[in-house]
Amino acid sequence: MRVLYAGDPEEKALWARSLRAADPRMDLVMDPAQTDPDAVEAILYAPGGPLRDFAPYRNLRFVQSLWAGVERILGEGRIPDHVPLARMVEPGLERGMVEYMLGHALRAHLETERFREAQAKGIWAPEAPPLASGRPLGVLGLGELGAAVGRALAAVGFPVSGWSRAPKPEIGTGIRALWGPEGLEEILESSEILLILLPLTPETRGLLNARTLARLPRGARIVNAARGPILDEAALLAALDSGALGGATLDVFAMEPLPSGHPFWSHPKILVTPHVASATRPETAARVAAEQMRRLAQGETPLHLVDRGRGY
Amino acid sequence: MRVLYAGDPEEKALWARSLRAADPRMDLVMDPAQTDPDAVEAILYAPGGPLRDFAPYRNLRFVQSLWAGVERILGEGRIPDHVPLARMVEPGLERGMVEYMLGHALRAHLETERFREAQAKGIWAPEAPPLASGRPLGVLGLGELGAAVGRALAAVGFPVSGWSRAPKPEIGTGIRALWGPEGLEEILESSEILLILLPLTPETRGLLNARTLARLPRGARIVNAARGPILDEAALLAALDSGALGGATLDVFAMEPLPSGHPFWSHPKILVTPHVASATRPETAARVAAEQMRRLAQGETPLHLVDRGRGY
Repeated sequence: MRVLYAGDPEEKALWARSLRAADPRMDLVMDPAQTDPDAVEAILYAPGGPLRDFAPYRNLRFVQSLWAGVERILGEGRIPDHVPLARMVEPGLERGMVEYMLGHALRAHLETERFREAQAKGIWAPEAPPLASGRPLGVLGLGELGAAVGRALAAVGFPVSGWSRAPKPEIGTGIRALWGPEGLEEILESSEILLILLPLTPETRGLLNARTLARLPRGARIVNAARGPILDEAALLAALDSGALGGATLDVFAMEPLPSGHPFWSHPKILVTPHVASATRPETAARVAAEQMRRLAQGETPLHLVDRGRGY
Repeated sequence: MRVLYAGDPEEKALWARSLRAADPRMDLVMDPAQTDPDAVEAILYAPGGPLRDFAPYRNLRFVQSLWAGVERILGEGRIPDHVPLARMVEPGLERGMVEYMLGHALRAHLETERFREAQAKGIWAPEAPPLASGRPLGVLGLGELGAAVGRALAAVGFPVSGWSRAPKPEIGTGIRALWGPEGLEEILESSEILLILLPLTPETRGLLNARTLARLPRGARIVNAARGPILDEAALLAALDSGALGGATLDVFAMEPLPSGHPFWSHPKILVTPHVASATRPETAARVAAEQMRRLAQGETPLHLVDRGRGY
């Protein structure tokens, strides 16, 4: 079964090494120009790579996204609807996201920016922040990533609430699970730090806007490592400038790379990171891809298939 | 049994409320001027408060430090040698220290300063840091605080080594325990982030100096939340300025408050926090103090007594 890599050309060497380590017998081609399209049964795909036209791949049976989020792939509309598509769910991505969210939640919790500002002025002001047990946090999105992040935050001692569109079965010790429109109001009103881990869908686009941001406690902080369009950028700027919100750590943006001259670059209450929280790690993701290929070859259903109607 | 509070006058109201909540029947006096010294059997003490002379307290049986570290109390030499002195070991202080160390270790691990510098220049450079599993950390000091911090770091996925002067019994899952002079060399050579949680004693004063700092990997980062004099300030500045070390987060200093004009205030690779990591939390510490008073009243030995020869 021939597998074609069609991801970021700059990561090709690392993916080749990782995929061959995961399954030395994989019939792997690293460049679309080096194979007859009819021979290809599975494609490992990421937007922005060398592959634009799926029409020549007439025997294609499966596409494995190399990214966790698939809304850009779905927006491109290149993959024929009859070909199953799977999200990338892999332990490296989850660990990276947990580390990013935990680190930036603690940075907000420890009020590191307040101490940095005092340092810049040469002021010694030894008021300690409260303990985590006195700092309620909210996690929007209780998929694999949101649940893992919520459990890690609860383990540190934060009171954690989590929200999802629909009720979730038990998602882990110490997370108060909320859902639906009423749950959203409740989590917004109680979260001093709000962590965004939702998929981007028509329902979540602009979910955090002037109206919903206004429900957060005064001085609340936001961390968005999901997708930029979930958070209305103009509404965020207005809330930061009025003092309603205390700060934001943003890893994702409406347009990426963040355009030169965008107000986020120079805003004193915003930390910009360049979409690094949810990086797929080829070393661990290649093992997931290899398992998907094994399932496909043996007639089993691949894991984490995308529901195109739902959008993730 | 009369108990006298002799701590920071600014915290008097919070301590009074917390102590009365912990034991409503405690015979508590909040000001030395308001009691006959002969009636006092126990003193809750912190340096810098109203009490300078212990001689009038002829019936004093016990002093409970309100701070975790007692080297300043021992240095003052005011408490008669025959009066037992206890360190403050309380859950709020430990939780606060775990949160501080975990947060600042993650800030160093996530290379937040690199992203902040790129943001200041408007540069989008999406190189993700390694996962925690690829970032070896070292914790100097494996007392109550060091062990708790090490366990929290290991739970996030860091490979954690811990060092103490003498061998320690099993201190927790996932911590590689090192000791003695050879262990010190080993932990220095392998720690990309070094967290200092040692007591200040004649042996640890200046333990981190030009020679020992030079053993750390190039670009290593340091977090000191123990006591300032453990780390030679001039050697640290030289190592940061040469590029040998990548950064330092400092909560404690040789002189506190950090003097105006000190080079740490304006150093681009140093974050100064004003001795907030190890704050005793009256809400939780008062319960420990009340338990110590109960033990004393009932003829039991108080917990966490200081060995004056050892210095902690």
